Amino acid sequence: MSKQSLQQKLKERGSEGHHPQVLILGAGRMCEPAVKYLSDGQFITRRLGNPHRHTIHVPVDVVLASLFLEDAEKVVEGIPNATAAQLDVSDGAQLRDLISEANVVISLLPANCHIPVANACIELKKHLVTASYVSSEMALLDDKAKQADVALLCEMGLDPGIDHMMAMKMIDEVHARGGRVQSFVSYCGGLPAPTAANNPLGYKFSWNPSGAIKAGRNSAVYLYKGKTVEVAGEDLFASAVPLRLQNMPAFALERLPNRDSLSYGNLYGIDKEASTIFRATLRYEGFSEIMAVLGELGFFNMDPLLPLNAANEPSSNLTYQAVLEHLLSQLPDIPTKFMATSGANTVSTTWITKKLAGLSCCKNSSVALRAANCIRWLGLDSEENVPEACKKSAFDVLCHQMEQRLTYAPNEQDMVLLHHELEVVYDDGHICEQQTATLLELGETHDRDTELLLRPQSAMARTVGLPVAIGAQLLLFEEVKSRGVLRPLCSEVYEPALEILAALGIKLEEHLEKF
Amino acid sequence: MSKQSLQQKLKERGSEGHHPQVLILGAGRMCEPAVKYLSDGQFITRRLGNPHRHTIHVPVDVVLASLFLEDAEKVVEGIPNATAAQLDVSDGAQLRDLISEANVVISLLPANCHIPVANACIELKKHLVTASYVSSEMALLDDKAKQADVALLCEMGLDPGIDHMMAMKMIDEVHARGGRVQSFVSYCGGLPAPTAANNPLGYKFSWNPSGAIKAGRNSAVYLYKGKTVEVAGEDLFASAVPLRLQNMPAFALERLPNRDSLSYGNLYGIDKEASTIFRATLRYEGFSEIMAVLGELGFFNMDPLLPLNAANEPSSNLTYQAVLEHLLSQLPDIPTKFMATSGANTVSTTWITKKLAGLSCCKNSSVALRAANCIRWLGLDSEENVPEACKKSAFDVLCHQMEQRLTYAPNEQDMVLLHHELEVVYDDGHICEQQTATLLELGETHDRDTELLLRPQSAMARTVGLPVAIGAQLLLFEEVKSRGVLRPLCSEVYEPALEILAALGIKLEEHLEKF
Repeated sequence: MSKQSLQQKLKERGSEGHHPQVLILGAGRMCEPAVKYLSDGQFITRRLGNPHRHTIHVPVDVVLASLFLEDAEKVVEGIPNATAAQLDVSDGAQLRDLISEANVVISLLPANCHIPVANACIELKKHLVTASYVSSEMALLDDKAKQADVALLCEMGLDPGIDHMMAMKMIDEVHARGGRVQSFVSYCGGLPAPTAANNPLGYKFSWNPSGAIKAGRNSAVYLYKGKTVEVAGEDLFASAVPLRLQNMPAFALERLPNRDSLSYGNLYGIDKEASTIFRATLRYEGFSEIMAVLGELGFFNMDPLLPLNAANEPSSNLTYQAVLEHLLSQLPDIPTKFMATSGANTVSTTWITKKLAGLSCCKNSSVALRAANCIRWLGLDSEENVPEACKKSAFDVLCHQMEQRLTYAPNEQDMVLLHHELEVVYDDGHICEQQTATLLELGETHDRDTELLLRPQSAMARTVGLPVAIGAQLLLFEEVKSRGVLRPLCSEVYEPALEILAALGIKLEEHLEKF
Repeated sequence: MSKQSLQQKLKERGSEGHHPQVLILGAGRMCEPAVKYLSDGQFITRRLGNPHRHTIHVPVDVVLASLFLEDAEKVVEGIPNATAAQLDVSDGAQLRDLISEANVVISLLPANCHIPVANACIELKKHLVTASYVSSEMALLDDKAKQADVALLCEMGLDPGIDHMMAMKMIDEVHARGGRVQSFVSYCGGLPAPTAANNPLGYKFSWNPSGAIKAGRNSAVYLYKGKTVEVAGEDLFASAVPLRLQNMPAFALERLPNRDSLSYGNLYGIDKEASTIFRATLRYEGFSEIMAVLGELGFFNMDPLLPLNAANEPSSNLTYQAVLEHLLSQLPDIPTKFMATSGANTVSTTWITKKLAGLSCCKNSSVALRAANCIRWLGLDSEENVPEACKKSAFDVLCHQMEQRLTYAPNEQDMVLLHHELEVVYDDGHICEQQTATLLELGETHDRDTELLLRPQSAMARTVGLPVAIGAQLLLFEEVKSRGVLRPLCSEVYEPALEILAALGIKLEEHLEKF
């Protein structure tokens, strides 16, 4: 859609120029809560002298721009004050045209698209909000943005985003009371709700799993009781540890170290005082154990499957079972009699379990059995042919089956769980406080009888989309006055943002235990 | 309300005598789903020759009778075709008057009230449905009921009820395939949904906890690999074992032997073939560990607290903390310095933990710490005065605090989880099948935006109330033709009941694994 037809649309609605305008770039999974919330026009503000926030109503026009107009149109359908626009973000002129009409810009594009957008925002003196990490290129724009009186508010989603807000609220409070943070531990997970975790891995994907699986092989580093602990990527799954949260005993969780925890010491201003700084990803217990088996078995291998193909089977007849047998045959001590006939019923749970039990990551036979069950549950033992698209590698085969089998059924809920734990010391040197904050958010569901909520929002979309939208409001209505590259680390941002999120039902449970 | 005014009410609605009438006795927590479902008039039937069930509409008048008319009136308010009535069940004439007007009677009264109701039903030739176990007195009515052509359909709730139906469906299928049930294991729990299990015990009560706590001290007996295992009441909590269900890894569960499992061998017709028969109650992991500590500490003690009172404190000043200190002081090796000053801040988590660590049920200090956290969470360390009503015993104090603290907040969901596992052998003698069936039901919630569901129904109420209502329908519309004292053990009852429950969204997940 050209700029003209957008202006035409706005004119037809009679709102052009009358209302402030927020431009949202990217019509992916996270945008809908932002579009709905902003176009609704409610702003939960705190006027000077009034200690409580109250809702005022300021109509806002929302323009949602997407490479494919249709994607944006689907989202804005039925939402008053929201208009769809087509945009190829690599077309600088088109980008500047759209931005020039807006008061604040939200970019939900992939992180590598933010720099041209940020440059255009600086040039046109418009604020920008993103949910992505500040890249080194973004950090370099700080001075330019300040000179242009522009805010580039980044890391304003869930993780990064709400995690920063929760952490800094807690840390600032500790420092204000004269305490020191001795230990900072943070867990974050985007998971299926327990009832939707109905498969052996307890996990589901709402998009292509390959990125998430690769992320499960990132190396990690953290600080534990004064010592730096490094975990190599290939050891990550094996380093998972079961976790129960004290007042949420129903969730069978495990934690996996999450990349570089050390940098958070500096970011949060606790690098001089904290001897433990640990950030971890949450999964349901047993996930990593099975993933470790799949990894050691060779299912993360991205080498071409061709040798197997060329030797054994015509390309069109490569079955899942053949791939599995090939991987299993690479393991030591395979009793050849089991491999004699490739075909019906050779691949039983018992046989797979026996084979897997030889892997170094299978501490006992029950691990092997659980992994074998998962392999069968994923259909990796199926006698169906592997689709042409995923014959490139065992990894492709795994991703394909995960994408097929680990999906949300209609009305199944996702879940976001964020939990920070601080150990605080005072001058006498003894641990005397444990401070925790927990955020638990479940996806919306259809009403059983009325099915009123036609498009229920996932917990992930709400906890990413609402913070960016709130960031845009805080800039639009001048509650945030800082300029340059910002993160929600200072109270100017996190205080109003957390209060507004709480008013929208996204609430921290805070707990203080004195020892 | 007199019989006359009930007939007046029915007459005013113009439905007296036109529609079949179901009389429901008891307006407690379980009745509402039954009232709503029956008065709605839908019946999901299978006509001969039609393999699929389909919904027909037969208006039914529902009369809900309660000792306090007001209780029944609250439930029927706004439900068409439902009328409230007052009934003192010990008034035989009044009872017979109400029953004589009905076609089928449902008794949701306490189990000890069923016999006079059953006798009146036999006398007046009306069918009766209950959700209670068949008592020995009820069993004795079998002949009389048969002679009167009356069905007394009992155990038609959740547990007993749906558990029987699931079990017999599975067992009958195994026998039809020529298999033998080598192992029958069944788990059932009424729990908070994981998100509502937000306390150290992971448990909540929707009614007075004393009965449930006492039930946690019942002795148990079961058959395991051919051996009879007995668990004494005082050892029950200590016998809890963690449990994960294979395709529901998110739930951190534990299982506790549930009374007499042996009798189910005979009931289910597997006493000659099964070497394992085990029924267990589900809790979230850690519940029993903490309950065992509370028990050993003396919080299940029903002796009067008077000695403590007389010695130390004026009756009006007995605090929770004093009760706790009294119990802790009974433990060995208490360092007296900790006990020197009764009053502010003496009772810290650290101190309670140290004391508890000496108990035989505290296998390690982390158990003691979790129990200490729970004690503080329940306010058992509070300096407030114990209310007059619960000064009788430490058990009363515990029950009072559990009733105060372990309650559902508005819109928190309960959960019902039922899981059967059968190991099946065929003639060659090897285990070759594991068959599982799982029922997972969560309580209804308000819609976030519309709050349309004004009275959300709990999972427990639905899984008890709907089966009794379905039982009444099956008798009313003559799908069940057997007479005498019945249980849902035969396909005549469980087949239609499970199919109708599934149509109402209460569905078994069945899984068959071949080895």
